[in-house]
Amino acid sequence: MTSGPANRPIRTGLTVIKAHGTENDFLLIPDLAGSLSLSAGLVRALCDRHGGIGADGVLRVVRTKLATEPDVQNQADQAEFFMDYRNADGSIAEMCGNGIRVVARYLQRIGLIGDQAELATRGGVRSVSFQGEDVTVAMGTATVRPERPTVNGGHRGIVLTVPNPHVVVELADERELAELDLTRPPVVDPPLPDGQNVEFFVRLGPRQVAMRVHERGVGETRSCGTGICAVAVAAGAGTSDGGAWRVDVPGGRCLVDWAPDGSILLSGPAVMVGEITIDEQWLTAHR
Amino acid sequence: MTSGPANRPIRTGLTVIKAHGTENDFLLIPDLAGSLSLSAGLVRALCDRHGGIGADGVLRVVRTKLATEPDVQNQADQAEFFMDYRNADGSIAEMCGNGIRVVARYLQRIGLIGDQAELATRGGVRSVSFQGEDVTVAMGTATVRPERPTVNGGHRGIVLTVPNPHVVVELADERELAELDLTRPPVVDPPLPDGQNVEFFVRLGPRQVAMRVHERGVGETRSCGTGICAVAVAAGAGTSDGGAWRVDVPGGRCLVDWAPDGSILLSGPAVMVGEITIDEQWLTAHR
Repeated sequence: MTSGPANRPIRTGLTVIKAHGTENDFLLIPDLAGSLSLSAGLVRALCDRHGGIGADGVLRVVRTKLATEPDVQNQADQAEFFMDYRNADGSIAEMCGNGIRVVARYLQRIGLIGDQAELATRGGVRSVSFQGEDVTVAMGTATVRPERPTVNGGHRGIVLTVPNPHVVVELADERELAELDLTRPPVVDPPLPDGQNVEFFVRLGPRQVAMRVHERGVGETRSCGTGICAVAVAAGAGTSDGGAWRVDVPGGRCLVDWAPDGSILLSGPAVMVGEITIDEQWLTAHR
Repeated sequence: MTSGPANRPIRTGLTVIKAHGTENDFLLIPDLAGSLSLSAGLVRALCDRHGGIGADGVLRVVRTKLATEPDVQNQADQAEFFMDYRNADGSIAEMCGNGIRVVARYLQRIGLIGDQAELATRGGVRSVSFQGEDVTVAMGTATVRPERPTVNGGHRGIVLTVPNPHVVVELADERELAELDLTRPPVVDPPLPDGQNVEFFVRLGPRQVAMRVHERGVGETRSCGTGICAVAVAAGAGTSDGGAWRVDVPGGRCLVDWAPDGSILLSGPAVMVGEITIDEQWLTAHR
């Protein structure tokens, strides 16, 4: 504001940061001291795109040794900071391949980590590093399973665990990919026991694919970190040549470097959009 | 943040405020000096719900005498502040019945207006006042037109101009309202020359209705200020008894007080969610 009175339009409440990785978007809450009690209701209200700020999930950042979550403090020797990831519906999740890039960028920007770091997650410690504008994350391994379920009555799917469950389908051309109706969950027969994310992809060139994803319990999203890894591994299944795969998702572009043993490095952007002071009156109504 | 270094995660850029009226949500940009050049591309990027902050539209607030918009400076004698409303697609709009409540609340909070004020809009001067938590806006008049088009092959619609075009349909019960598919525009036959917003409503009791709305060029929304007025007038058409109508929309509740001459007062909430500092790097990429 270039002029005006000293009265503030917003009464100071919580500070959150809106950021995204290939348009998988988050509200990052700095809570280094681990003093914030973050209810499922507050997560839902913050992530509500019309009544709150809006995001796919919340990333709470805590000093690992101060985190009270089970099975997290034991990572404190390896990782100074813990990513507490929550889905927009308030539920707890183990890891998020796009979200962890955002956490890394945030910690780098405020000078708390250097060019490389380990981060604690509910899914275990993950290594992050910076390559120009991109952030690279060691995602663990993707395992190709023997099942070959049918998808939408015709296509044959490849099943992978990353470690969450994925079914990947190759399509013939970009038009088929563009015309897919993902407003409903794809029909997988037989379905996996815990449900599945379903990815559809087409080959654009050597080691280049484009994909769309329907996430379990969410719907179509602009990007899904483990889904991107699943597609790159499925697209290269049976080959043993090394090098990075370029994966285009609706929300942007990532690179996936995977070794024949299934270990994966996922690289992609992490964009800070803005820092938000949540109004105290709103906060009181939604705590 | 309760602890940490002095480095800031966000480099100072533009300041905007996220707010909503019955979950019709906005990014309010204080620009009292009228010095901000707000491109359609920047509006679209800010309103993008995944890559930006996300909102139904932008409300730029300018001192009327400093506004350079045609036909606005001549309102400066009557109204000290001008609401420059833009849709999420970057296009310019005349007025917004939910947005103007948000502008009024903002100006009240920073102490620039008192209990009552006049605000300039591209649609002319509007009076606003405060009633407890609600903001009341004089919306002008709603005119019932003689046309009675068919909606979705069966229902008979009432046409009103507020002054934008509306077609209002009464349904038999709440179940029919809940089960409506508004993912596609309702079929209006014959359509109005410039298209139309379409509202469906049911009566809940004396002067109490519930409604859903499909906005022209947008889709179903949580609330529409002129649509709420159109429904109240249509529901009371033919009656001449005075008093306020309660209109429930998916995003909350409003009151509509209309006189037999068609002049309307719309009252409803205006909720401040948070104040956002947009990152300079993001801003540079989207200007």
